Amino acid sequence: MLYTVVDLLGVIAFAISGVLVAMEKRLDLFGVGIIALVTSIGGGTLRDLLLGYAPVDWMRHPHIVYVILLTTTLAVLFQSRLKNLRTSLFLFDTIGIGLYTLVGIEKGLDAGLSPVICIALGTITACFGGVLRDILCNEIPVIFRREIYASACIAGGGLYFLFVAAGLSAVYAYVGGIAAVILIRLLAVRFGIGLPNLYRNPAG
Amino acid sequence: MLYTVVDLLGVIAFAISGVLVAMEKRLDLFGVGIIALVTSIGGGTLRDLLLGYAPVDWMRHPHIVYVILLTTTLAVLFQSRLKNLRTSLFLFDTIGIGLYTLVGIEKGLDAGLSPVICIALGTITACFGGVLRDILCNEIPVIFRREIYASACIAGGGLYFLFVAAGLSAVYAYVGGIAAVILIRLLAVRFGIGLPNLYRNPAG
Amino acid sequence: MLYTVVDLLGVIAFAISGVLVAMEKRLDLFGVGIIALVTSIGGGTLRDLLLGYAPVDWMRHPHIVYVILLTTTLAVLFQSRLKNLRTSLFLFDTIGIGLYTLVGIEKGLDAGLSPVICIALGTITACFGGVLRDILCNEIPVIFRREIYASACIAGGGLYFLFVAAGLSAVYAYVGGIAAVILIRLLAVRFGIGLPNLYRNPAG
Repeated sequence: MLYTVVDLLGVIAFAISGVLVAMEKRLDLFGVGIIALVTSIGGGTLRDLLLGYAPVDWMRHPHIVYVILLTTTLAVLFQSRLKNLRTSLFLFDTIGIGLYTLVGIEKGLDAGLSPVICIALGTITACFGGVLRDILCNEIPVIFRREIYASACIAGGGLYFLFVAAGLSAVYAYVGGIAAVILIRLLAVRFGIGLPNLYRNPAG
Repeated sequence: MLYTVVDLLGVIAFAISGVLVAMEKRLDLFGVGIIALVTSIGGGTLRDLLLGYAPVDWMRHPHIVYVILLTTTLAVLFQSRLKNLRTSLFLFDTIGIGLYTLVGIEKGLDAGLSPVICIALGTITACFGGVLRDILCNEIPVIFRREIYASACIAGGGLYFLFVAAGLSAVYAYVGGIAAVILIRLLAVRFGIGLPNLYRNPAG
Repeated sequence: MLYTVVDLLGVIAFAISGVLVAMEKRLDLFGVGIIALVTSIGGGTLRDLLLGYAPVDWMRHPHIVYVILLTTTLAVLFQSRLKNLRTSLFLFDTIGIGLYTLVGIEKGLDAGLSPVICIALGTITACFGGVLRDILCNEIPVIFRREIYASACIAGGGLYFLFVAAGLSAVYAYVGGIAAVILIRLLAVRFGIGLPNLYRNPAG
């Protein structure tokens, strides 16, 4: 029950982030809806395709599609109020990537894959909706340039396997992994922590 | 027989639309051929992947690939004459999306999916070749910004399920769905009907 | 054994080409790593998805992922020395596309597909990592505009089937196909041979 509510909050936060990027590009209603859908379910779809699970998740659970389309409609109607939700949206999004990361890891484990591949699947689930959103909007994906985002998924996923190796029960390790992703992202944003700079000269 | 002819006209129209976009970007012969292929078979390929049908359709029916490559060659050779075909190409393309929409819906029904998901699959079949074409050419997909196109597929797909619910036989509903997509698109273009504007300020 | 070494050289060359493009776009460490991974394994992943082989290749052979991540780390650390490796990288890359083309063709034959489709699969295996790299970096794929690259894969793949038709044993035809791709690319670059120009006016 709690799981479903949290999951829906993540879906909604991802959909709204899609609406915001799409409206900045002045797409029409169809375009905005597609970008919202892709942002929400793109990561899970790529994960399912790579694993060979088909029909992919959202095709077997159409209620997710309804939630996203409803969210899109509301976000478009109340677009001027979205700014006030900035903090809530950031929190939902962060919870979303924490949850999605562990969902992806679990699916990888079910398929008998090695930890590194499971962490990759978790990161794909959490982050590639946003990557597809940015590609469709003709931008370099923001998570390739921004501070800690996908890195939080990778680190939290790594901690999950550490928790399991340390003997934690499955449920505690799972919840701990989600919490780790969320905390790492929150702390990174709060204290302005980023990845080490690769470049000697300042950006031209 | 009629079905095959109509299907080929759609494939040809999609391929030529790919050639035109690719040549505007001054791609080389290989690039033009790839864009023509992707435009024609990209939507069906994505649909097959999402459904878990593999090897995907065109791999089992290579004659489609021959038709597209022949079309590309002719379109490149007679590029200066393509302008005169503008109206025919528009018609073929419109017939193509009508047909592809219902082909996608039928494949979704065969897989036991719900109507909303089937309509999504139909729209993907009809429209995502064009989306992939535009992404490969580094453009925001034109169907995210243009008047009625994907919306005609969605509306026509919805009408198909209405026809079935109203008791029409499978064949009539199928043909009626195709006709609905085509008519909606033709009427929208003829009378300049678009989606409602989402934006208060004019585009900057 | 030789096969594995050559395969790894190809993977490394592709990964470094990804690092170079990603660093030109000033992506962060995560972005650079993803682009390196996508460039190296993107083509094989698309091939496996189209064929319905899942979990896809790299998920079952995680050591490839380690090699790519190690390559990325070294390439970032020694970025200033990469220029001196230009010729080696060009050679590795050329060997890589030769090898990948025949790997793709073989997988297509295993799936019972026709020669034209097998050549398409070989070309996808060799070239679509680079296409995905360029799309993620918001560029029109360089192989759609550059001289002979994918065309070498297509021609070499065609020669493979010619060798088989001419009665060569499987191994000789395979090695001959790889050599053909490599030679065609080397000769095309050496003598500045390109595809015929499609455009009457010079590029504006």
